[in-house]
Amino acid sequence: MTLCPRGEPEPWKKMTYCVALKLDRGLVFMSDTRTNAGVDKVATYRKMQSWCKPGERVMTLLSAGNLATTQAVISLLEERTLALEERDPSLMSTPTMFQAARIVGQTLREVIAEARGEGASGDSTFDATLILGGQIQGIEPRLFLIYPEGNFIEASAETPFFQIGETKYGRPILVRAFSPDLTFEDAVKLLCLSFDSTIKANLSVGMPLDVQVIETDRLDLLHQRRIEQDDAYFVQLSEMFSEAMKDAFASLPAFRFE
Amino acid sequence: MTLCPRGEPEPWKKMTYCVALKLDRGLVFMSDTRTNAGVDKVATYRKMQSWCKPGERVMTLLSAGNLATTQAVISLLEERTLALEERDPSLMSTPTMFQAARIVGQTLREVIAEARGEGASGDSTFDATLILGGQIQGIEPRLFLIYPEGNFIEASAETPFFQIGETKYGRPILVRAFSPDLTFEDAVKLLCLSFDSTIKANLSVGMPLDVQVIETDRLDLLHQRRIEQDDAYFVQLSEMFSEAMKDAFASLPAFRFE
Repeated sequence: MTLCPRGEPEPWKKMTYCVALKLDRGLVFMSDTRTNAGVDKVATYRKMQSWCKPGERVMTLLSAGNLATTQAVISLLEERTLALEERDPSLMSTPTMFQAARIVGQTLREVIAEARGEGASGDSTFDATLILGGQIQGIEPRLFLIYPEGNFIEASAETPFFQIGETKYGRPILVRAFSPDLTFEDAVKLLCLSFDSTIKANLSVGMPLDVQVIETDRLDLLHQRRIEQDDAYFVQLSEMFSEAMKDAFASLPAFRFE
Repeated sequence: MTLCPRGEPEPWKKMTYCVALKLDRGLVFMSDTRTNAGVDKVATYRKMQSWCKPGERVMTLLSAGNLATTQAVISLLEERTLALEERDPSLMSTPTMFQAARIVGQTLREVIAEARGEGASGDSTFDATLILGGQIQGIEPRLFLIYPEGNFIEASAETPFFQIGETKYGRPILVRAFSPDLTFEDAVKLLCLSFDSTIKANLSVGMPLDVQVIETDRLDLLHQRRIEQDDAYFVQLSEMFSEAMKDAFASLPAFRFE
């Protein structure tokens, strides 16, 4: 385990940024795709995984943390959804999203425990944090933040969005502009701005960005998009927002040293 | 040493926010005053210390990190400036700001080493990070970021400001609106906005805020201010900026799922 200077968390803990919003009309997810194992090993991986049985259930999982852990968790979840005969419940057969979150949390905890082996229980090298959102027919969409310990919390009116990974740079705009009645189009705009602030500040979060929308009662995967580095909309939005921030700054009254 | 959940740095590392800007016309400093040793021990301490011999030299020091360490460093620096007969060089007698930064860095490293005792050299419990800026007659103002190891880097045209402590929330606005030709009044406005974003997001950074300006070739402490919780300007600025951010957000084009 490499210790980072001055007690900062290991770089891989922050080399991701994922956000999920709970809106009145459904859920919106965005994740970056940058992964590295050091400054000279930059790679691109999906941090967003979706499952869908049209008309019955749809789920999306976002992951931040140790890549080996998150890949193992996803592989185990996938295997269970394919082996329908197995006694283990799978994401494709749970009666509720709460049960789905329990399955994901338990799988996450098991993978981390196995990777740690006899290691100290406080060792966070193999940790990952996940966001799971989705809808099962007849129940409202639900959104969960799942901790490495396997437990989880749910989004609510007071906590209508979750961020994992490098969360701080992109938080001020979310806090200020989020509203539960946003359209999906405006929600993606908001997420683009939040990612733009993060990418500008931190090299370990990088384009392209993955987008996913789960519209209430559509029970299907909608609007799957990948926003590339040179995406015209993203580039324009970034420039316009920088200008708007500068203009806003200029328009505010200066401090006065009486 | 208390380990925090999921490998996050100890809370005291982040329970501070300090910024120093290097402008064409001088240096501007701002720090918060919140200090805690747990959520039920909230106190207010100055994190800004200034020394001045009018007409000859002026310096300001900002500190983030272990409070015992930063208080010990300041006490040792103070004692040396008072005991003029001592052989140790003091901040009030160094020929250059570079030498002053060396004295501060060395003092910091010694205090941390003593606190650690025989402990592991990787232990960051007693660490602190400092910003030192000032001017000595006949030389340009200079600004340094001093690490717990005692070494330091200097502000430059490419790196015209330093932040320590809880730096991320307040960075996007600094990156977008900083310009070296800002007036002192606009610089304090910018710093207020950066602190506002941080305070909104993180309970461990709190009002009041300390302000200090070092104007080039004035060689005196100017514009020392304390901005209190209910400061009319700060409250108004915060509200206006939130509105401006919302307006900017609303004015930008929405994403389109073709």
